[in-house]
Amino acid sequence: MTGTKITVGKVKTVFRTAEPDVVLIQYEDRVTAGNGKKELWVENKGVICCQISKILFEILESRGIKTHYLSMPTCRTMACKEVKIIPIEVVVRNVAAGSIVRQTTLEEGKIINWPLVEFYLKDDEKDDPLLTEDRIKLMGYGDDIKALQYHAREINGILKTVFLNMDLTLVDFKLEFGYDADKNLLLADELSPDGMRLWKDGKSFDKDLFRKEEGSIVEAYQYILSKLKEIL
Amino acid sequence: MTGTKITVGKVKTVFRTAEPDVVLIQYEDRVTAGNGKKELWVENKGVICCQISKILFEILESRGIKTHYLSMPTCRTMACKEVKIIPIEVVVRNVAAGSIVRQTTLEEGKIINWPLVEFYLKDDEKDDPLLTEDRIKLMGYGDDIKALQYHAREINGILKTVFLNMDLTLVDFKLEFGYDADKNLLLADELSPDGMRLWKDGKSFDKDLFRKEEGSIVEAYQYILSKLKEIL
Repeated sequence: MTGTKITVGKVKTVFRTAEPDVVLIQYEDRVTAGNGKKELWVENKGVICCQISKILFEILESRGIKTHYLSMPTCRTMACKEVKIIPIEVVVRNVAAGSIVRQTTLEEGKIINWPLVEFYLKDDEKDDPLLTEDRIKLMGYGDDIKALQYHAREINGILKTVFLNMDLTLVDFKLEFGYDADKNLLLADELSPDGMRLWKDGKSFDKDLFRKEEGSIVEAYQYILSKLKEIL
Repeated sequence: MTGTKITVGKVKTVFRTAEPDVVLIQYEDRVTAGNGKKELWVENKGVICCQISKILFEILESRGIKTHYLSMPTCRTMACKEVKIIPIEVVVRNVAAGSIVRQTTLEEGKIINWPLVEFYLKDDEKDDPLLTEDRIKLMGYGDDIKALQYHAREINGILKTVFLNMDLTLVDFKLEFGYDADKNLLLADELSPDGMRLWKDGKSFDKDLFRKEEGSIVEAYQYILSKLKEIL
């Protein structure tokens, strides 16, 4: 069954491998926004995101965070442990930007002194709505909240430091977690500027460039990648 | 300055009176949905809502809940204590319906065993977004959360019983609170089928009739009013 597609996501495709419990995740040269309402083919973007993800997963692993990452067999594919994804996206916010500005009285750029860990339902059709802890409990995921909170805060501490060393502000980022066959909770999905906001001197180095049509994401992502390689 | 309009809301107009700290709230013959995107003139609706509100405020006052209600000088106006409204709408849910169904995996009609108290930003332009407790704290209203929770639960206990006596299920309802000049927290706004869902034998007796174009709201609201008068 090697090579069978398991899921085709908006920017990644997941394939089965000969090994049970190992999947191949292929990063496509595509960028989407607004839950796929806006879409563009961007040459080389998948390759850059895959490399950034690899480096960040390796940094996190070296700091004791369990992730699904195993290896990078090609320039745009990752071998990962297969996990059952928890359908709740975890968002960590160090600075107010994006939806929290549209949905509260907070102004863009306001520093959030105690970083915020928020939860969103992973459901494109419903537009990934914000969840309260009470709603999560009603949906049957109450037991996961504490662990997701703890891991997200620890990951934030590590990633914030990584980007600070590159003179970048980690404004916010999205995480997805899942359970492997042995019921271990692992950080999954990808870690790239597609799922985080990175600011430097008032400029974005993330998907907002595409959302707001303010510049080339490939250049910005390439900059992030080269900086990451520098500090390694 | 008697008769000066203070605020013109979607379905109510607030006037100043000769007495300081007392306002007149006039219930208009209008119904809106989707934060005013959908609107209709409905004869007599204001008169009915005003009477329902009066009865419910009086029931709550008699059970020890402090409200802004003072008297009903005309068939569509209420004299109320002037309050500074907290810009957070409190929603109590006994059964899943409306936005919580669109924003979670819960199905319409699911009974919520421990009623849910939720908070929404009172801001039509932002479409009254759902708030988490963390967001409320960041916006500077953290001190109000506990009191709003407590009052909302007590009001739910009272109103649920009132409607049960009329063979109606109180599915959910919205509350607004404010502080008077002496810093007392009072239940404010209105209490009518405009701001609650009431079900009986699978039928709605509330604004959903207008939202979903399923029938006459005046007939349904009139039914609620006559039933309320019966049980008094």
